[in-house]
Amino acid sequence: MKKTNKKINAAIIIIGNEILSGRTQDQNLMNLSKWLNDLGVKIEEVRIVPDDEIAIIHTVNFLRERFNYIFTTGGIGPTHDDITAKSIAKAFNLKYGKHNEAYKLLEKYYGLKNFNVGRKKMAMMPTKATLILNPSSGAPGFIVDNVFCLPGVPSILKSMLGGLKNKIKGGKKIFSKTISIQTVESEIAVSLGQIQQKFKKVDIGSYPFFKLGKIGVCIVVRSSDKKEIDVCCKEIVSFLKKKNINMIEKK
Amino acid sequence: MKKTNKKINAAIIIIGNEILSGRTQDQNLMNLSKWLNDLGVKIEEVRIVPDDEIAIIHTVNFLRERFNYIFTTGGIGPTHDDITAKSIAKAFNLKYGKHNEAYKLLEKYYGLKNFNVGRKKMAMMPTKATLILNPSSGAPGFIVDNVFCLPGVPSILKSMLGGLKNKIKGGKKIFSKTISIQTVESEIAVSLGQIQQKFKKVDIGSYPFFKLGKIGVCIVVRSSDKKEIDVCCKEIVSFLKKKNINMIEKK
Repeated sequence: MKKTNKKINAAIIIIGNEILSGRTQDQNLMNLSKWLNDLGVKIEEVRIVPDDEIAIIHTVNFLRERFNYIFTTGGIGPTHDDITAKSIAKAFNLKYGKHNEAYKLLEKYYGLKNFNVGRKKMAMMPTKATLILNPSSGAPGFIVDNVFCLPGVPSILKSMLGGLKNKIKGGKKIFSKTISIQTVESEIAVSLGQIQQKFKKVDIGSYPFFKLGKIGVCIVVRSSDKKEIDVCCKEIVSFLKKKNINMIEKK
Repeated sequence: MKKTNKKINAAIIIIGNEILSGRTQDQNLMNLSKWLNDLGVKIEEVRIVPDDEIAIIHTVNFLRERFNYIFTTGGIGPTHDDITAKSIAKAFNLKYGKHNEAYKLLEKYYGLKNFNVGRKKMAMMPTKATLILNPSSGAPGFIVDNVFCLPGVPSILKSMLGGLKNKIKGGKKIFSKTISIQTVESEIAVSLGQIQQKFKKVDIGSYPFFKLGKIGVCIVVRSSDKKEIDVCCKEIVSFLKKKNINMIEKK
């Protein structure tokens, strides 16, 4: 994979009524974020939309002009509510129909006898799309231009990422360090804000946590510049010591 | 709470770099969805945006014109990366400053001695906003017009919902029934599609699952019309029996 020095960004479109209704907890964003971050691609926006053709078309067409990569999750199965492939074809004004390579692949996977109408639907997509192979359950995803269409089932999606690496041209990787401390945010807010002012090349995030009856804050320092993270973290540690704030962990 | 017969919808804006980077798993969407569904409000879009003023302003201003209710989560704490309140003031072109009621409330909560600069920041918001009381940790959320601003910590957000009920005018409640079966989606795709064609007043969703080494499908039938759900489910059960497909659960 060739890396560039530019910032490369992505948006994710999560397609599915079941996510919006609260029936299903999305897990794909987290997996995709971490995987893309390792490739030097930063997710800058996520939209969750219903199984609705117009919503999908508008969202895809708006975002694909503004981000380097778009990933969609969900809606590429065999049932009537799986409308991603048709919607993507419409978004790009491309022919939707039997994708010969996908058809052959699915026919081989299921065997002639078991290749029923439902399974054949999974070969219907923009006919000129590039396939994303699926090592766990046969049915492929697909790529049109900068839009990568993946399934909704997290374990299947994850298994398909390996084959995608050489299709993504990443930029600078973002590194991070986390300092976990035993205090509340309001005790560190002013000093942390001053340090953020001083270090323009890092992003300092402050995230309160409440676990096992303990309260605390994770300070996360993120940047593409590892040295700058180290210098910034030293300054944070120094003010924590001055304030006698207990550090739980630094990693 | 007065209910109307109209469809009432909402969009959620999740604000936070930590969600986009995959560091933190969002839990608020699921809690808000279920709570709003009980009030007869359907979430039709979710956007996850970074801690970036321009992104927040654009997203709020676009969505608030198109949905009955907007809920934002995150970014109302005391640190420099908490910029929701200021961004909302800018989005509405309202004065951002010390909110007298919030200030008094926080001063009382922390006590004069412990009411430091960080904590005082949590009283900074659109000065004319309506407060959302916070029974778990003092710092209030706020409402401007149809935009409800809530914190990012799930347990705190949840504790604030009770006080919000009479502020939401819901529509028809959506009911659902779920039939879990032991098969794969492609075996039911055609028949299920035909049933969906016949029942225009219900939404039939099909969701494959893989748990404890078993594969199966959940068929979820959703509608504001309970009777229509029952009739539709009967028809589904009848075709499942004809096809000798094993039902695991119906609820």
